[in-house]
Formats: sequence, C-alpha cells, structure tokens
Amino acid sequence: MTFARKHLLELEDLTSAEITHILDTAARYKQSAPARLEAPLRGHTVVNLFYEPSTRTRMSFELAAKKLSADVLNFSSAASSASKGETLVDTARNLESMGARVFVVRHPAAGAARLLSRSVQASIVNAGDGAHEHPTQGLLDLFTLRERFGHLEGLKVAIVGDITHSRVARSNIAGLTRMGAEVRLAGPPTLLPTGIEMLGARAFDRVEEAIQGVHAIMMLRIQLERQKGSFLPSLQEYSALYGLTPERLCLAHPDVVILHPGPLNRGVEISSELADGPRSLILDQVANGVLVRMAVLALLGGVTS
Amino acid sequence: MTFARKHLLELEDLTSAEITHILDTAARYKQSAPARLEAPLRGHTVVNLFYEPSTRTRMSFELAAKKLSADVLNFSSAASSASKGETLVDTARNLESMGARVFVVRHPAAGAARLLSRSVQASIVNAGDGAHEHPTQGLLDLFTLRERFGHLEGLKVAIVGDITHSRVARSNIAGLTRMGAEVRLAGPPTLLPTGIEMLGARAFDRVEEAIQGVHAIMMLRIQLERQKGSFLPSLQEYSALYGLTPERLCLAHPDVVILHPGPLNRGVEISSELADGPRSLILDQVANGVLVRMAVLALLGGVTS
Amino acid sequence: MTFARKHLLELEDLTSAEITHILDTAARYKQSAPARLEAPLRGHTVVNLFYEPSTRTRMSFELAAKKLSADVLNFSSAASSASKGETLVDTARNLESMGARVFVVRHPAAGAARLLSRSVQASIVNAGDGAHEHPTQGLLDLFTLRERFGHLEGLKVAIVGDITHSRVARSNIAGLTRMGAEVRLAGPPTLLPTGIEMLGARAFDRVEEAIQGVHAIMMLRIQLERQKGSFLPSLQEYSALYGLTPERLCLAHPDVVILHPGPLNRGVEISSELADGPRSLILDQVANGVLVRMAVLALLGGVTS
Repeated sequence: MTFARKHLLELEDLTSAEITHILDTAARYKQSAPARLEAPLRGHTVVNLFYEPSTRTRMSFELAAKKLSADVLNFSSAASSASKGETLVDTARNLESMGARVFVVRHPAAGAARLLSRSVQASIVNAGDGAHEHPTQGLLDLFTLRERFGHLEGLKVAIVGDITHSRVARSNIAGLTRMGAEVRLAGPPTLLPTGIEMLGARAFDRVEEAIQGVHAIMMLRIQLERQKGSFLPSLQEYSALYGLTPERLCLAHPDVVILHPGPLNRGVEISSELADGPRSLILDQVANGVLVRMAVLALLGGVTS
Repeated sequence: MTFARKHLLELEDLTSAEITHILDTAARYKQSAPARLEAPLRGHTVVNLFYEPSTRTRMSFELAAKKLSADVLNFSSAASSASKGETLVDTARNLESMGARVFVVRHPAAGAARLLSRSVQASIVNAGDGAHEHPTQGLLDLFTLRERFGHLEGLKVAIVGDITHSRVARSNIAGLTRMGAEVRLAGPPTLLPTGIEMLGARAFDRVEEAIQGVHAIMMLRIQLERQKGSFLPSLQEYSALYGLTPERLCLAHPDVVILHPGPLNRGVEISSELADGPRSLILDQVANGVLVRMAVLALLGGVTS
Repeated sequence: MTFARKHLLELEDLTSAEITHILDTAARYKQSAPARLEAPLRGHTVVNLFYEPSTRTRMSFELAAKKLSADVLNFSSAASSASKGETLVDTARNLESMGARVFVVRHPAAGAARLLSRSVQASIVNAGDGAHEHPTQGLLDLFTLRERFGHLEGLKVAIVGDITHSRVARSNIAGLTRMGAEVRLAGPPTLLPTGIEMLGARAFDRVEEAIQGVHAIMMLRIQLERQKGSFLPSLQEYSALYGLTPERLCLAHPDVVILHPGPLNRGVEISSELADGPRSLILDQVANGVLVRMAVLALLGGVTS
C-alpha cells in the first residue's frame, strides 16, 4: 500500500486509515528494523531545519533517518544565515537546490511547516510549529497507547497542564479523537483556551474530575519560563493543584498508564516516584518515537514495503 | 587526466586548462552522480574548519563530501579550543594527526588557507579567506555561466556592489578573466577599491554603464552591518542607485542572466521579482555548487575518472 | 580473548592485563585498520555526551567510532535540553531509549561517568570527569610511550604543571604505576595536592629534581583562567620556574621524549622549539588517541578479534 501524502503537517489533516498505516509501519519496524543493506533511503538527503533549540526531537529524527540510510544534515538557526536575515523559505529553497528531499522543520511560528510545503518541492515533516501541532509526537503517543491497550477506540485519555501553549496537546487531541478515543483536558483556567472543546475534547477545571476512570494520563511539561508571565501563580501552587501524585492516580482506571513528552520537571508536574514507576510509559514513548519517525520518513519517501 | 595540484587556494593561481578540467568533472557529475558503491573517497576524512559562521557553504561541502563517501567532521571555532587560544595551525596539525586528509577552511584573515597549506600535509580547499578569495564560489559561477551560454570566452559580466570587501568578486574576476570573459565592476566609490583594474576588470561609477549589453549581472550581497560604518549613506539610497530592477535589466543583453552568491537581501540589492524570475540562475548556482565542490574534492583526492 | 568490562570509568580500576589488552588491540589497528566492509560496530549508536566544550577529544572519539562503522550522535549541553533543566541521567536514559549503546561522557563533575554507569544499561566511556580521570588520555599516553620504548615497566616519567586540577595527571599516575613505571610530579606548591603521593607518585618542588634522568616528561596545560585565582603568581613566573626549556631537558635521560595533552600554550609551559622538535611525541599522541579509542569502543562493544 502506498502513502498518498507528500507532507506531514498536522494530525488534524489525516484520516484514521492514514494514521493506522503509519502506526502499522512503525510496528513492523519494531519487529525487525530494516537492515542496513536494504538501505531504503540511501542517497536521500534529510535536513533537520530547526529554528528552536531541541535535543531529543532532533536526535530522534537523526537516528530515524540514519537507520534508513539517509544522509542527514543538521541546520540550526543559531549558527546560520538566519542571523544574516535570510528568510525561512529562501533557506529551504537553497538547501533543496543542494539536494534536500525532506525537511524536518521546527519553528516558533504556527503555520511555518505549511508555508514551507507550499514553497518547495521537498517533503515537509512538521516537528513542531509554535503552539499549533507536533504530529510525530502525537503519532508516537498513539503508537505507545495502541501497543499497550491493543486499540485506541474507546480509550479515555486525560491531558493535563498548559493546554494553551502546547502543540503536543493539539496533535494528541486531533489524533486521539480521530481514532475514536475520548480526550479530556485539565489545567489552570489561564492555560485552558476557551473554545478548545470545538476540537472534540472536554475541558475540566479540576484535574480530579478529568482523570476519573481514564486509561492514560498525559502530563504536559510546565515551561518554567511561563512563570514570569501571569499564567501561573507559583510552581508550588501549580504542583499542588495539578501535579500527578500517587493519590490522584488512584482515581484513574486500574490499568492507567502515564505519558509525558519530556523533558520532565521532576517534582513539578509529576513526582519522580510516578515518572520512574511501573505505570510510566515515558521511556517507551522515546523508543517508539524513533520507530514512528522512521515510518513517516519511509512512507513520505515512497517506501512501500 | 590527473590534476597536478594539491590545494585549491585561489583562482588567481589556476590556468584555464585547470579550471576547465574542474568544470568538466563537475559537468560529468551532473550527468550521473558517482554511485555510492563506487565510493571514490571512502575512508578519506574531510574536515570543515570554519572560523566564521556559515550555513550554505559548509553544508554544500558536507553534502559534496558525503556524496563521494568521505567521512566529514565539522569544526567551528565557536564550540572549540579556539576559545582556549590554540592557533589555527596547531588545530589543523592535530586534526591531521587524527587522520584528516582534506581541510575545507573558512577564516576571517586573508591568507589563512595559504598559511595552512604550508603547515600541514593535507590538502587545503579555501572556502573563503577574509576579503581575498572564495575559489569554489568563483568556480560554481563559471560553471553556471558556461552551462547556460556554452562557453565563457567573450562573455561580458558585470559585478555590482561592495567590491572592496568581496572575496566572491575577487575569485570571479580572476576566474572569468582567465577564461577570456570581460568583467565590469560597479558600486559606490567607497566600496570600489582603487587599483582594482589591475586585476583585469573595468570599474564604472554608474551601474547603468556597467551593465550595458552584458550577458550576466552578478549582484553582491550588501552586508547590512557595513551600514554602521561610513561606507553606505543609507540602504534606501544604495538600493536606488545600485539595486537591480527590471528597468535596469533592460540595458543588458537580451539573454542576460542574474547571479547572486546569497543570502539575498530582497528589496535591497535585488528585487524579489527578479530574484525569483526567469532570468535568475540563483538556485542553479546553489545546485551547481555541490557538483563543483565534489569535483574539487575528488580531483584533490586523486580521483582521476 | 574477550574484554570482561562494560564501562571504562578510570584507569585506577583496571588491571595491568586489561590495560595491556587495550594497548595490544590499538597496536593491531595501527598495523591495519579494520576495513569498512568488516564494519565491526555497524548499527551501534555511539553518543558523545559532552557537558564541557571540547574539540579534539570529541572529534577523536567521533573518528574512532566512524572507523568502526558506528553511527555517532553529538550531544553538547549548550544547544540542548540541559538549558531546560533536564538531569544528566534523564538525558542519558532518553538517548538510551532511542538506541544509544555507548555514551562517551565529558562532565565537569568528578564521578559523573560512574553515576551514569549505574543509571543506564549502555556502556559508559569516561572522556573526562572534573579533576578525576580521563582514562583514554592516559591510555594513549601509555600507548605512545610503550611504542617508543618497547615497554612501560621501569620507565621514569615526570608530570609537570597543575597537578591539582588535572584529570590527565590522575589517569597517567594510575596507569603508569599500574604498568610498573615510576611517576614523579612537579608543580607550584599551590597546584600540588597534599597526599598525592598516596597514589604512588613522588612529588617534587623543583622541576629540575623531578626530571633528573627521566625517560618522558609530560607537560600539563596551564589553564590560563586559573591565573585569576590565587594559584599562579604570574604566567611569566610560572614559565620561568616550570616551563620546559632545552636547558632543563638536558637533565633528563638522553632518550627522553616530551608529551603534552594539548592544546598547547606555546611559550608558557613549553617552548615552541621543543614542542615541534625531534624529542616531541605530541602529534603521535593525537594520532594514537584515535587508535586507542577505537580499541576501547570495539572491546566494550564485544568485538573480540
């Protein structure tokens, strides 16, 4: 089966059949990674085009591309012509002229990946655009949940934290609801956007209500720098009201699992006991991330088997 | 035919036969890239030794080296022992002891590449030394013009902008005149060095005169930081007097093409309409840059076919 | 013969048989590097996890890993989640989940490598932890001396400079004494820790006494930033009292060789005449460093032949 899309811009875009196709491909890679000799993307050049600092996402894509035998170039705006004022589109067009076939793009502006997809011939993978989407993060979360529960339909998933600024939340809301899961949101009122329920999720003021009976709790990272604004009264108060503790976990389904996109603020949004405990799938998410990104790069690159 | 040189330091150095040999090699790579299996530089280590920030040149060399199956290491002075005060020569000798066979060197000091070529056994490719030369940029411009017009001899080429500080201009003057083209220069009097005509080019005060009947116009990047000095009265005035516009383009030969080494200051030295229009070869230059650098690395590495 | 260790944390740890095994493996690689086709670490991912700036050590490990056909990822704390407050252990666990099999770790805190070795399943190679150890530097020094003299037992080696802050000194003291060499130390009293003789070396106030009859003099780098503290009265005085000069060299054994871990402060701890002269093995150290690191990575990776 071929994958008919050229770009991965947002999960909002994808059908459930397409999502399933990506997850199935990643699952096959988990069984047996493509051998180097097969080299499905040999000669392809993948460029990581990162306008925000990132370690884990960049390295995850780099490993995924290398496992498919692609050449990988890392572009980060700090050490680059961005400081000389070149536009995103001009930079990408230049790199495309040099031979780039895929751009993995992270950018502080929502819509940057889509803009690029209209400006170059290469495939675009959105690796996070502002507060809009981070679709491969959503896909790896879906993969991790499907692997644990065998299915996504009917799962109840709570996403807790700073929903307003979270592209991870938006991709998960889109992907989970598309796959038939129920999504609940909880967070401080200042960080729960009005109208978010239009995306198909239900918002709760109190985390205790949101996690009642859920199969999965996804704790978002509190960006400590937001504290300087008026979004959070104090970390202590945030932690007391919204942090995940063993007591709160008891309200969830007995099989509940814990997800977190990382990096963790231990003792703020999640206790170390839970992050490292048997309910946590946090490191599984990281491992599955490489597989899901391999699947995305392979499918966009026209690999069909 | 073997290439008898060990280093590529400046086009001023090369004979027209040598330049032609490099361009012919690049042209052959354009027809069919060497297959990975041939792996002409397998086991060679190429080090990008960059003492100035650069994205496009560094990535172009990195891609060229990888396409020849070389191992590539990137050294940039920011994250390095340069801050510990080690000299350029000591750094290169160390990297050579580790196995480097080729250094691609960018440095703010004119003559840095030549200094290195006298201090190590490895091959040196000058990737820009102060305001002196940037020979692979010159070669890719020659390649692009030869590809379009079928020959270089007799072409009239105008180079417009900050000639004083431009290593791109110096390499093009050397390469184009060597190949029998006529080179004209135009720019603000403060940025047109006296004596530049000794290099074989003709200087003009007014851009309109310089581009009269030319086959190619090479617009140089205005370095916005120079504005702080007394070189430029204002960007607006520079743009009005020297910027390339559709009106001015009409003065040139009907087949005229537009070159620019990038990155572009759209609306300053060139209008977006022209940069993206049918006369522009700007992205061809970028694509050809990888081929020309492959040719240089292969020839210096002793690849003969 | 298999190598029974999983980590390389310090030379203090190793038996002389283990040290000899590593040196013998490196010596075999010097005779004939493993061909790419053998690809002993194909598919292994080596992560350089550097929390201190470094060029030469990072590049030496990167080259060593690539020569064994491993995939190499570079993590440096500057451009990373370290700024987001993630702990060393969380970062390593994440990278391990992505597939890292070996971490090459440099960290300002003594004990960081050992801490990691208890927190992940991957192999840890200490590439310098605070003022504790830098075992591959010690091994490459041993290799270089053994190569020159044919043996280590009975050699007299003087280490001169800032012993207090030098992990290079500690690894050499451990490795050399373990192999039966005699180690002498000299340096300003403020930089010679009391109790250092417990490690098996002899401390001298005057460099002239320390180097009397020695086969090798290892000059340590003076970290110029220490001058701001009260450790050094002035560079001139340090250089006059402890710098290596041709006059002082005459006090040593007629076959004496000079080592330095680099980068050099020419004219401070060593004169250029000596650094570049026939007694200097400084560049041999660098070349041997790649071989020793190949040996360590291969042996920890389970390569047995």
